[in-house]
Amino acid sequence: MSNQLNVTVPEGAPFIDFTREFDFPVAAVFEAHRDPEIVAQWFGPNNMKMEVDHYDFHSGGSYKYTHSDETGNYVFTGVFHTVRENEFAIQTFEFDGYPDVVAMDYIRFETLENNRTRLVGHSVYPTQEARDGMAASGMEVGLSEGYARLDALLSSR
Amino acid sequence: MSNQLNVTVPEGAPFIDFTREFDFPVAAVFEAHRDPEIVAQWFGPNNMKMEVDHYDFHSGGSYKYTHSDETGNYVFTGVFHTVRENEFAIQTFEFDGYPDVVAMDYIRFETLENNRTRLVGHSVYPTQEARDGMAASGMEVGLSEGYARLDALLSSR
Repeated sequence: MSNQLNVTVPEGAPFIDFTREFDFPVAAVFEAHRDPEIVAQWFGPNNMKMEVDHYDFHSGGSYKYTHSDETGNYVFTGVFHTVRENEFAIQTFEFDGYPDVVAMDYIRFETLENNRTRLVGHSVYPTQEARDGMAASGMEVGLSEGYARLDALLSSR
Repeated sequence: MSNQLNVTVPEGAPFIDFTREFDFPVAAVFEAHRDPEIVAQWFGPNNMKMEVDHYDFHSGGSYKYTHSDETGNYVFTGVFHTVRENEFAIQTFEFDGYPDVVAMDYIRFETLENNRTRLVGHSVYPTQEARDGMAASGMEVGLSEGYARLDALLSSR
């Protein structure tokens, strides 16, 4: 049984929301977001290779990583406004294909019963057009594939 | 003659936009945003004292400052996602009275004829309610008073 990614793209508001549950405790799910060596093993679409330039997952830190496949390299950068262990993160997100169009991602790590976890995401875009473009970009597939790989990774530990 | 602050609060979108022109060149207006010792002299409402804890106005930097008056202390924190000299900045913005409600502010420094400058601001809020609360908070008065003090400061140099 696998847990489903639920993405909501609200009408007329520049947001994308999602939830995803995991059959693993919050500490394990958070650590898989904090440690760049683990992040590089699961984050992003299946067909992409991820290379981390730097990834300092703490308040005031920043990150830069590259996803690549046979079509090219895709560079992502951002800063972490807030990171609270096993609880909450707020970070900015920019793709070099759309320079200066920066999203803000809220991620909440919720503790469920039976050592399970719920991730609650809220992404905020600077224009409605930017949100619509992101929603149409295949991000849902990439996110869903990434979380399935995270499940597999956490199962194997 | 003083230049006017024009604030737009669009219906049904979580944004606040503004423009403000200055009779000073972009380099001077940008420097007054970059140097924390100058920022502390003009930013915010007239009745507030500003104390800067740190303010590193460059890509990947962060800031923390306190506004205070007889009613209390108001702490603001954020990170700078992008800073391009004399051109553009993107930063996050959090007021400790509304923890975890983080806005993203885009500021464009435009060069006009006759050594003049136009600031173009676009603020993005994580919910419509947060935007409405900010719009009702007196932020327009504080911004307007601050820019008038910046005019006076740049005139005196």
